[in-house]
Amino acid sequence: MPASEFDLIDRYFKRDAPANMLGVGDDCALFAPPPGMQLAASTDLLLEGRHFLSDMDPCALGHKALAVNLSDLAAMGAQPLGCLLGLALPAARAGQPNWLAGFARGFWAQADAHGCPLLGGDTTRSDTAVSISVTVFGALPAGQALRRDAARPGDDVWVSGRTLGAADMALAILQGRCTDNSACLALLRPALERPEPQVALGVALRGIAHACIDISDGLLQDLGHILAASACGARLYEADLPVAPPLANWPLEQRRPAVLGGGDVYQLCFTAPAHARQRVLQAGEEVGTEVSRIGLITAEPGLSVLDAQGQRLPFLPRGFDHFGDDHAA
Amino acid sequence: MPASEFDLIDRYFKRDAPANMLGVGDDCALFAPPPGMQLAASTDLLLEGRHFLSDMDPCALGHKALAVNLSDLAAMGAQPLGCLLGLALPAARAGQPNWLAGFARGFWAQADAHGCPLLGGDTTRSDTAVSISVTVFGALPAGQALRRDAARPGDDVWVSGRTLGAADMALAILQGRCTDNSACLALLRPALERPEPQVALGVALRGIAHACIDISDGLLQDLGHILAASACGARLYEADLPVAPPLANWPLEQRRPAVLGGGDVYQLCFTAPAHARQRVLQAGEEVGTEVSRIGLITAEPGLSVLDAQGQRLPFLPRGFDHFGDDHAA
Repeated sequence: MPASEFDLIDRYFKRDAPANMLGVGDDCALFAPPPGMQLAASTDLLLEGRHFLSDMDPCALGHKALAVNLSDLAAMGAQPLGCLLGLALPAARAGQPNWLAGFARGFWAQADAHGCPLLGGDTTRSDTAVSISVTVFGALPAGQALRRDAARPGDDVWVSGRTLGAADMALAILQGRCTDNSACLALLRPALERPEPQVALGVALRGIAHACIDISDGLLQDLGHILAASACGARLYEADLPVAPPLANWPLEQRRPAVLGGGDVYQLCFTAPAHARQRVLQAGEEVGTEVSRIGLITAEPGLSVLDAQGQRLPFLPRGFDHFGDDHAA
Repeated sequence: MPASEFDLIDRYFKRDAPANMLGVGDDCALFAPPPGMQLAASTDLLLEGRHFLSDMDPCALGHKALAVNLSDLAAMGAQPLGCLLGLALPAARAGQPNWLAGFARGFWAQADAHGCPLLGGDTTRSDTAVSISVTVFGALPAGQALRRDAARPGDDVWVSGRTLGAADMALAILQGRCTDNSACLALLRPALERPEPQVALGVALRGIAHACIDISDGLLQDLGHILAASACGARLYEADLPVAPPLANWPLEQRRPAVLGGGDVYQLCFTAPAHARQRVLQAGEEVGTEVSRIGLITAEPGLSVLDAQGQRLPFLPRGFDHFGDDHAA
C-alpha cells in the first residue's frame, strides 16, 4: 500500500525551518528578505524523459533539480533564501523509498551547500512520468541585479568554469548518438548530472559585471538573449572558449556544436567593462572559479565567432529551443 | 512548424511588469514586499488527467491554475504580489493557438482580479500530458499570518461561501459516476472549474481569526490539518454546513460524502474566538462573502460531526489523499 502524500512529505522533505521562517506544513511558506533587499524568484519544470533520463541516479536528480534553479539566482547575483518543491510521482516511484530517499538526499545537499532551505511545496500522484517543479527565492540589494539588458558596446564577454560542451556530449554518449568516445563518459557525466551553480560568483560580480545569464540552452543562444535585450552584438574568439578538458583534444568540427550550442552548462556568461578585467579575475579567484574572457560586445548587432585563424565561422549551431527541434534531454 | 518557446512566451504571457518589478524575460523576476511585510509563497502542480480533464475549457483551466494558488495565499491572510508559471505542453497543445490564448486569458483575468501579475516562468515541451506549476507570492504584516497551529479550544469553526459539495459532485457527474443528477451539472460546474479564491476575506480576517486553511482536499481532511497542528479537536453541526444550493435538497446520505469529504472547494475554513463572532460576520459582509459558523474547537482530540438530531455520525468520509486512493480529479 502506498504511503500517503502527507507521510511522504514528513518523511523525506520536512525539516525545521530556519528562525524567522515558516516552512513545510502550512498553506504558504513565510519568510522575509533582509531589510532593503529585493527578492529574486525563478521556477523551472523538469520532466522525466525530456529533461532527465528515467534511470538517472535519484540523488543526482535531486541535486540537479535544485542546482539548475540556483543557477538562475546566480545569474542575477542573488543570494539564495529558500525554495519550494512540486513533485508529481507515478505510483511505482512513490512506492520506492530508496528512490525518494536518494532524491531528497541530493536535493537537501544542494540546499545546505547554498543556504537555500526547502520551505514548502506540493506532492501529487502522476499517471505517467515524474514531474518536478522547483521555485527558488534569493535576495539582492535593490538596483544591483545582473540583468540581461545591461551589456554595453566595448564590454568584454566572459564565461565561468571550464565545462563547455561536457554536458551535451555526455548526453549524446548516453543516448547512443556518439559511440566513438564512450570512454570519456565518466569524465563528462558529472557536468550533465551534477552541475555546480555559480552562486558565489554571481554574488561576487555585483557591481562589477554588467549583463549576466546562465548557460542553460547553449552559449550562443543564451548570449543571444543578452544581445537582444541589450540591443547590441558580440564577437567571440573560439580559441579562448573554456572547453571541457576531455573535449579539448577532439577535432574542432566534432566538438564545435557541443561547445557553442550545447545546453545544460549552468555556468555564467557575463559582460563587464574592459577597465574591470582585474576585478573580474579577482572575483573568480576569491570564489575559486575560473573565468575566461572569450570576446567582446559590439555596437553593431549580430553574433560572430572567429576561429584561431581569425576567420569568421560560416555556420553556427542552433541553440536549444524546447519547442523548436528534437534536441531534447 | 511549432512556434518556438520564446515566441510562445512573448505572444501569450509577456506583459510589462508593474513599476519596481522585473517581469518575464530575465533569469529571475525581481520584486520586493512592502517595508515591514513578510512574504508568503506557495506552489501547486496541476496535471492533465489527474487534476483536470483533458477537454476542460482552456480559459477555465487558466483561471483555476492561478485561483487554487491564490487560495493558499488567502488561507494565510496574504495580499497577492505576483506569480510564476511553469507550463509543459505536448506538441499538439503548443500548436493550438486557441488553446494557449484561452489559457492565458483565463490566467490573466485572475491575475488582474487579484493584483497578482505574472512575473516569470518556464515553458517546455512535454511528451505526454499538460503539466502546470504555479507559484504565488503575497505579503502580510509580520506575525499576522493565519497559521494552522493557531486554533484554541472554545474557538468557533467557520466556513466561507456556500459551495460545499459542488465541485466534487460536478466531477462525479462529468466522470459518469453520478448519472441521476446530470441536470444539476450546469449549476455545479462553475464551482469545479472556476473557483473564486477568498483573497479579500483572508486579508479581512487578519487579527480576527486564529487558524485558517483553504479547503482543497475536503472539509474534514483540511480541518483535520488544523486540529493536528493545533493539538485539539472539533465538533461540527451538519445542519449548519453551507451546502451548495443544488445539493441542499438531495437526500443526506447521497450528498454527505461530497459535502464533508469532497475536495476542490477553495473556500476558507477558519477558527475564531467566540467573542469575535460579530467581527467575523462583519468581515464577511465587507468583502461580500457569506460566512457560516459550523462548530467549535474542543480541547479533547478527535473530530466529530453531529446530525440535525444531535447524533454523532458513525462513519465519516475520507478526505482526498493524492497517494492514498483512487479518488483523483
